[in-house]
Amino acid sequence: MQTAILIIQCKDEKGIVAAVSDFLHRYSGNIIEVDQHIDAEIGDFFMRAAWELESFDIPQDHILETFQREVGEKFGMKCTLKFNEPKPRMALFVSKLSHCLFDILSRYYSGQFQVEIPLIISNHPDLKRVVKGFGIPFHFLPITKETKALREKQQLDLLQEHQVDFIVLARYMQILSGDFIRHFPNRIINIHHSFLPAFVGAKPYHAAYKRGVKIIGATAHYVTEELDAGPIIEQDVARVRHQNTVEEMVQMGQDVEKVVLSRAIKYHLAHKVQVVGNRTIIFN
Amino acid sequence: MQTAILIIQCKDEKGIVAAVSDFLHRYSGNIIEVDQHIDAEIGDFFMRAAWELESFDIPQDHILETFQREVGEKFGMKCTLKFNEPKPRMALFVSKLSHCLFDILSRYYSGQFQVEIPLIISNHPDLKRVVKGFGIPFHFLPITKETKALREKQQLDLLQEHQVDFIVLARYMQILSGDFIRHFPNRIINIHHSFLPAFVGAKPYHAAYKRGVKIIGATAHYVTEELDAGPIIEQDVARVRHQNTVEEMVQMGQDVEKVVLSRAIKYHLAHKVQVVGNRTIIFN
Amino acid sequence: MQTAILIIQCKDEKGIVAAVSDFLHRYSGNIIEVDQHIDAEIGDFFMRAAWELESFDIPQDHILETFQREVGEKFGMKCTLKFNEPKPRMALFVSKLSHCLFDILSRYYSGQFQVEIPLIISNHPDLKRVVKGFGIPFHFLPITKETKALREKQQLDLLQEHQVDFIVLARYMQILSGDFIRHFPNRIINIHHSFLPAFVGAKPYHAAYKRGVKIIGATAHYVTEELDAGPIIEQDVARVRHQNTVEEMVQMGQDVEKVVLSRAIKYHLAHKVQVVGNRTIIFN
Amino acid sequence: MQTAILIIQCKDEKGIVAAVSDFLHRYSGNIIEVDQHIDAEIGDFFMRAAWELESFDIPQDHILETFQREVGEKFGMKCTLKFNEPKPRMALFVSKLSHCLFDILSRYYSGQFQVEIPLIISNHPDLKRVVKGFGIPFHFLPITKETKALREKQQLDLLQEHQVDFIVLARYMQILSGDFIRHFPNRIINIHHSFLPAFVGAKPYHAAYKRGVKIIGATAHYVTEELDAGPIIEQDVARVRHQNTVEEMVQMGQDVEKVVLSRAIKYHLAHKVQVVGNRTIIFN
Repeated sequence: MQTAILIIQCKDEKGIVAAVSDFLHRYSGNIIEVDQHIDAEIGDFFMRAAWELESFDIPQDHILETFQREVGEKFGMKCTLKFNEPKPRMALFVSKLSHCLFDILSRYYSGQFQVEIPLIISNHPDLKRVVKGFGIPFHFLPITKETKALREKQQLDLLQEHQVDFIVLARYMQILSGDFIRHFPNRIINIHHSFLPAFVGAKPYHAAYKRGVKIIGATAHYVTEELDAGPIIEQDVARVRHQNTVEEMVQMGQDVEKVVLSRAIKYHLAHKVQVVGNRTIIFN
Repeated sequence: MQTAILIIQCKDEKGIVAAVSDFLHRYSGNIIEVDQHIDAEIGDFFMRAAWELESFDIPQDHILETFQREVGEKFGMKCTLKFNEPKPRMALFVSKLSHCLFDILSRYYSGQFQVEIPLIISNHPDLKRVVKGFGIPFHFLPITKETKALREKQQLDLLQEHQVDFIVLARYMQILSGDFIRHFPNRIINIHHSFLPAFVGAKPYHAAYKRGVKIIGATAHYVTEELDAGPIIEQDVARVRHQNTVEEMVQMGQDVEKVVLSRAIKYHLAHKVQVVGNRTIIFN
Repeated sequence: MQTAILIIQCKDEKGIVAAVSDFLHRYSGNIIEVDQHIDAEIGDFFMRAAWELESFDIPQDHILETFQREVGEKFGMKCTLKFNEPKPRMALFVSKLSHCLFDILSRYYSGQFQVEIPLIISNHPDLKRVVKGFGIPFHFLPITKETKALREKQQLDLLQEHQVDFIVLARYMQILSGDFIRHFPNRIINIHHSFLPAFVGAKPYHAAYKRGVKIIGATAHYVTEELDAGPIIEQDVARVRHQNTVEEMVQMGQDVEKVVLSRAIKYHLAHKVQVVGNRTIIFN
Repeated sequence: MQTAILIIQCKDEKGIVAAVSDFLHRYSGNIIEVDQHIDAEIGDFFMRAAWELESFDIPQDHILETFQREVGEKFGMKCTLKFNEPKPRMALFVSKLSHCLFDILSRYYSGQFQVEIPLIISNHPDLKRVVKGFGIPFHFLPITKETKALREKQQLDLLQEHQVDFIVLARYMQILSGDFIRHFPNRIINIHHSFLPAFVGAKPYHAAYKRGVKIIGATAHYVTEELDAGPIIEQDVARVRHQNTVEEMVQMGQDVEKVVLSRAIKYHLAHKVQVVGNRTIIFN
């Protein structure tokens, strides 16, 4: 079923829901999902509506402008219109760790993710053999301090060539340059292996062990230029005990990481994530 | 802030949201919360809308009939209209166990529950002394097989006299008669100390121990005439290990019971629970 | 590091821990893990001890008899002695669903499971292609009512040929015969997609939806002849809401299933599961 | 049942468990609980053993010295010996918030806590009336910047007079002086309303909201002179959504705070907490 997804943001005032509902009703839109939110901090109104395209009276190409003209302009709305088809195109960046990669590929294989995965990019060759059964091209681009800028250029070329919409860093062990990040604003999802904002940076499980926490976590967030400080999409935790060594915490944490990252991908794919400042609305 | 809460149910069709939104907008209703749901099993549309009363153009007494005439009749809606004031009146039924009672009274004391508690009814005298600081009349009505019918009559008289809206069985250890229950349809909340539908009936922690489960739970539900089979409002669980004796499971379970029951009360107080068949919608 | 794992069961009496500790100390056993438990229901004492083999004074082949003679006989102990090497040999049985299979293979690939997987057996050919990167022989044995007995014979031959120690049913959609099960007592691990004992049998997510539960679960257990009634090894849960369709519950449940099954495998591999009646001790 | 609890710490070496087990067995100690742990960071061995006093051959007053002479000295052990009776004496410090106080008093009332509570100290008079049913003296000691030193002196006098063993800060809104803290090393339990080490200091829920976290938490820890940096005893979390205001997060967090604090008290009461550097072992 083909669907349109409209996300709007504007100053909160009376009559917005009525106006949007009336618009969709007037053009025979069969609403599948609708969710609204008023942000307490900035006072803005947010709405996400999804409806069936087939019976809708406005051709796909004219929906946005029609909506803007008839509704959006009046309320000063910032609008984003998305369609569930064609499927978004996602690139996977990996290094040596496999747990997040397999979790994503498993969901892709079973049809749980409505996504195309045109390529996997890795700075290590290790995972190439084991993922070949999934039939996704695997690009090995080793990175040294000297080749980093060149490799990012090659990566960007590959992403453009394959018309990639967004990138998932599935425990990719390289820090992206600000220049690279600016090509994909709020379109690079990273999984950090701590419960942010605790334990930013390298070796968070070691830091967690040292502080003696009783719960560890993982955080999926959009990548911004400040390390591990981007808008949080999803988090989850696992209980640890004093018996657990750092190595065990790493293993227990991996179970959290993969689930958290996959949930974040799912929200992103369904256009359910809206960034507000450094926070996210998850229309769910 | 005085608010009105409208809950509607009807066959799903196009234009309902637009019609309701337009109605509220037309009469200057400042919407605070709105949530909708289409039940996959019976195909019905459900909606809950809350708005400020102060600026609303229709006097409180005429809202329901106006809405029915202008919107409801067209869609064949079943409507319920509630107000947050005056506060609902809740009766507490207890026996000897105190954990749920104290959890409820603590929230009542701190203002977390928008509720009046005109009376506590117990078939045991034990808890009377310790709750006196809360200033709520405590009625001790001991029950034997012979006096049960009489006591229920006295209880019903007390409930009527105090204009009680709904009843919470806070680990009340008596089974209510069908006749009693019919006075308060979907208005008696019970906490059962198992993860229903597992371990219906008496001594669920013993049954859980015997079956060797690794997780125990608690279930808040509306009381119906079939024991422990009414619509579930809320559930939660706690992890147990083989080391835990039945007595420890009882203690660990009590922490779940009290939280689950209090959450159910909170949903009920905010008119967020809608019963559909034997399931519940929680507008949240 | 080569280790021995001793599990003992006997009537509880004074001096058991002292006797076992003294035995291990006397022969220079460097204890890595030791855990004991007194079962409240049957009054038995259980103990699991793991120690390094390298420095131990008794040759591997004589440990059990020496222990029995010097300690076990005095207390009437039932003893099991295991070694972490050679690695246990695990067979995977699958059908069409891939989530549990990929989760297991991912852990196997990353070295999280200390196990050999000599073969995968499936009654459907679908998953063969996608798992070929893992290099594990995949046996497609289709099953009809008529061929079931024959196929089980072929499966048993394969298991014997590959010296399989235990079997994991990774969402294998066939019910094993009593005869088959008796070949692997407490050595077949199944994942049932409900929070047992609720929703035994087929289509548990449909049953959970119908009952209106707020939490769903999954249960890993040893297979016995009574369906879904064997000793529970591990369980976990996920919260659902009224919005979730059965299909969504299936998807959310799969995340729980795979984690629960993999945890159960991990406990089994480390010889940390001891069956007592129809319950399990998890030495952890 | 009267029990002794022995906690030992020493360099890890072979034969410790055997020596301790043999000691307890030799003097007819009926072991109830025994747990050991080797700390991976400092290499020390820890053990906690609890046994029945009634049948034990050494009089209560001579246990520690006998153990030290016969076992402890050989291994250079640091030993602590505790008894479950007489019950520990706990002082409660509160301000205006009631949720933690009621949770503790409820467990005290039901006998879940094996403790004496000789007094409640508060810098506000508000809670006095409502807790009077529990029969515990309530001392109102208002604090200003000028009277702080005086009040702490009065508090210390009260604590001494009532022979208080340890203090629980049940959302007590004053920072204790270093001098006060040094009177009760690792014997003051505080509940901090964040998932430490995230959001140290004042208004953690506001900080959590601002950072856009998806999970909030609470931390029970021993008070040290560095604010919110002492050894963590217990933590737990609750999921929040973008809809939740700071006020709602405060309310949701209170449910976590009270459970976390009460669990920490329970561990402390059972002498199950051992501080190692800035971490804790929870013998459980």
